[in-house]
Amino acid sequence: MKPQAISFVAKSGTGKTTLVEQVIADLSSRGWQVGALKHGAHRFNIDHPGKDSYRFTDAGAATTLITSPDKLALVKKHQAEPPMAELLEHYFADMDIVLVEGFKASGLPKIEVYREGHSRELLSRTVLGDGELLAVATDASLDLDVPLLDLNRPSDVADFVEAWLQHREQAA
Amino acid sequence: MKPQAISFVAKSGTGKTTLVEQVIADLSSRGWQVGALKHGAHRFNIDHPGKDSYRFTDAGAATTLITSPDKLALVKKHQAEPPMAELLEHYFADMDIVLVEGFKASGLPKIEVYREGHSRELLSRTVLGDGELLAVATDASLDLDVPLLDLNRPSDVADFVEAWLQHREQAA
Repeated sequence: MKPQAISFVAKSGTGKTTLVEQVIADLSSRGWQVGALKHGAHRFNIDHPGKDSYRFTDAGAATTLITSPDKLALVKKHQAEPPMAELLEHYFADMDIVLVEGFKASGLPKIEVYREGHSRELLSRTVLGDGELLAVATDASLDLDVPLLDLNRPSDVADFVEAWLQHREQAA
Repeated sequence: MKPQAISFVAKSGTGKTTLVEQVIADLSSRGWQVGALKHGAHRFNIDHPGKDSYRFTDAGAATTLITSPDKLALVKKHQAEPPMAELLEHYFADMDIVLVEGFKASGLPKIEVYREGHSRELLSRTVLGDGELLAVATDASLDLDVPLLDLNRPSDVADFVEAWLQHREQAA
């Protein structure tokens, strides 16, 4: 059943990345092995010109991996993005939980981040397809049939994720 | 048998990384899927403060992966470096050839880079353990029982690697 994964979805400008960052910090400090998976819609450069990893990738290497005593870094070119399930299985098999950002239509269980005034409706009630809506992290007063979590209390969100994770592990 | 791998070994200051970069470029332009694997002796930072990948890793994520339409980038923390064979198998299975740098005692077939005046003896005749010495890329006149390749003609080194690779693939 590893790894369990939850997708954080939101319209832009809600502070979703900051919330994910805070939940990562909280769960990690509790001893969980936490993974983070983000879909970057635009091209990005992770490494610096002049660094060996950049030089190798720039020269044409389809896969570049640098290791050090404390971590490894991989850059892998592809023609098309691998399916998320494949990414989870191949790169996150040793994680307890993966917090996913930016795969709105993934079919994963979801927490929606909803900030008052940023949009008129919940994403998960409109464009989202499959994937159970577990909770909404918000600063608004909403009337919903799922739990509301306080967007401004990341530890509450971490509590919720942890409880969900423990429930899933017991069920497995 | 995939991926085939060759380790480039040298004392520091020989321009080994530049040679590897040039051989990557040459082989890639010939249509090979080329991987690069480097052991960084020191801690390194591949990503920038402020970038999402950095934020997630810094927050405590043990594994962070960012994907875009053209590539993915992974940062994975570890307590100890995985064995090189495991790195090759897990991350480079779809490559034709991996050029390895910085794993001197790996047991892989090796090309030593030797620049005149930088050292008095070949590394592969002293500290290196297992791993066949395939050739020496050098600008010196040496009397050796393995082929000498011109360090200043990277395409010659690429030719050698390609011929070796084709021979291995035929033998497999």
